[in-house]
Amino acid sequence: MAGVNVLPRSVQRLIDEFARLPGIGPKSASRLTFYLLRAADDQSADLATALQDLKAQTRLCSICFNITEEDPCLICADDGRNTELLCVVEEPLDVVAIERSRAFNGRYHVLHGAISPVEGIGPDDLKIAELVARVEKGGLKEIIVATNATLEGDSTALYLQRRLAPLGVRLTRLARGLPVGGDLEYTDEITLGRAMEGRQELL
Amino acid sequence: MAGVNVLPRSVQRLIDEFARLPGIGPKSASRLTFYLLRAADDQSADLATALQDLKAQTRLCSICFNITEEDPCLICADDGRNTELLCVVEEPLDVVAIERSRAFNGRYHVLHGAISPVEGIGPDDLKIAELVARVEKGGLKEIIVATNATLEGDSTALYLQRRLAPLGVRLTRLARGLPVGGDLEYTDEITLGRAMEGRQELL
Repeated sequence: MAGVNVLPRSVQRLIDEFARLPGIGPKSASRLTFYLLRAADDQSADLATALQDLKAQTRLCSICFNITEEDPCLICADDGRNTELLCVVEEPLDVVAIERSRAFNGRYHVLHGAISPVEGIGPDDLKIAELVARVEKGGLKEIIVATNATLEGDSTALYLQRRLAPLGVRLTRLARGLPVGGDLEYTDEITLGRAMEGRQELL
Repeated sequence: MAGVNVLPRSVQRLIDEFARLPGIGPKSASRLTFYLLRAADDQSADLATALQDLKAQTRLCSICFNITEEDPCLICADDGRNTELLCVVEEPLDVVAIERSRAFNGRYHVLHGAISPVEGIGPDDLKIAELVARVEKGGLKEIIVATNATLEGDSTALYLQRRLAPLGVRLTRLARGLPVGGDLEYTDEITLGRAMEGRQELL
């Protein structure tokens, strides 16, 4: 009987590289590879160029640690933004989400993760010392801790509270409650409890 | 209010390129991109190289039209295989699947698709003329039409039957029936009907 793997080496290698990415199993990896084999020549070339440029052209902003092509980043360099308001987030994608909401006009600080003893991530692995230094410089009126509503996000918020409270700046967290469009009947009891605790006056 | 898209151009470009791939939406595309931003430097470089090599190092075998690095491909060049047996498949991945089954020791012919009037794919868009020429050359005892068990695969098989029957070679199709390990209770009625029609003597 014939050998089992008859794929050319270069095809197998691209399948293997795709399969290393999170959320892409071996089946999707070969589907993507065979899609590219059939697609116009420039599609795989364009993807290759975009991959090479990714690391070559990006760095972390030296002020807020968001991913940027220029340092300082466009948000830190923007004179139109409120410099007294700082929003602390876990990841660069969180900045994108908050910007999309158009509900915040201050600056950001990206921690690059959250405290997670299970994964061995402590405060020193995050941009927390840099945040404390930034707050100590003064000029801030309020720090909004916008970490995720998860165990890790909550631990991180608690830790930040202990570190930042002595510096005499106002600390806030994002509200918990029903998501807009959310159905009470299908809301989990913890979210419902938080929504109850955080209830507001009808005006 | 601030602008909505604050992603650096090179980050956005990779997200766009990922999102062009089938089965990858904008959310997965940004997750992959931010994963690569955080991964070791060589992972995106390795993926880029694999993409560039894909088209540069592969071509179609001039005999069977499978994807290969050498022409003729390893299967066509293999003296140990039965040259009187030809298996016609839609895609190169089908060759991989059949090889994995170790149930076939002949050669292949890859059509690169199936007849689909809805998608505007006719016989001339597939390697059918090449198949007919190959059969006319003689030396074949049996052609196994292993197109998919779909509407398109069945139409293609029917078309091939009309084109190849006059050439006096034995034409067969893969059996339809219960998948191994399949539960009768959960088998759809069409498969069950086919399994009934194709029933075999208990020996």
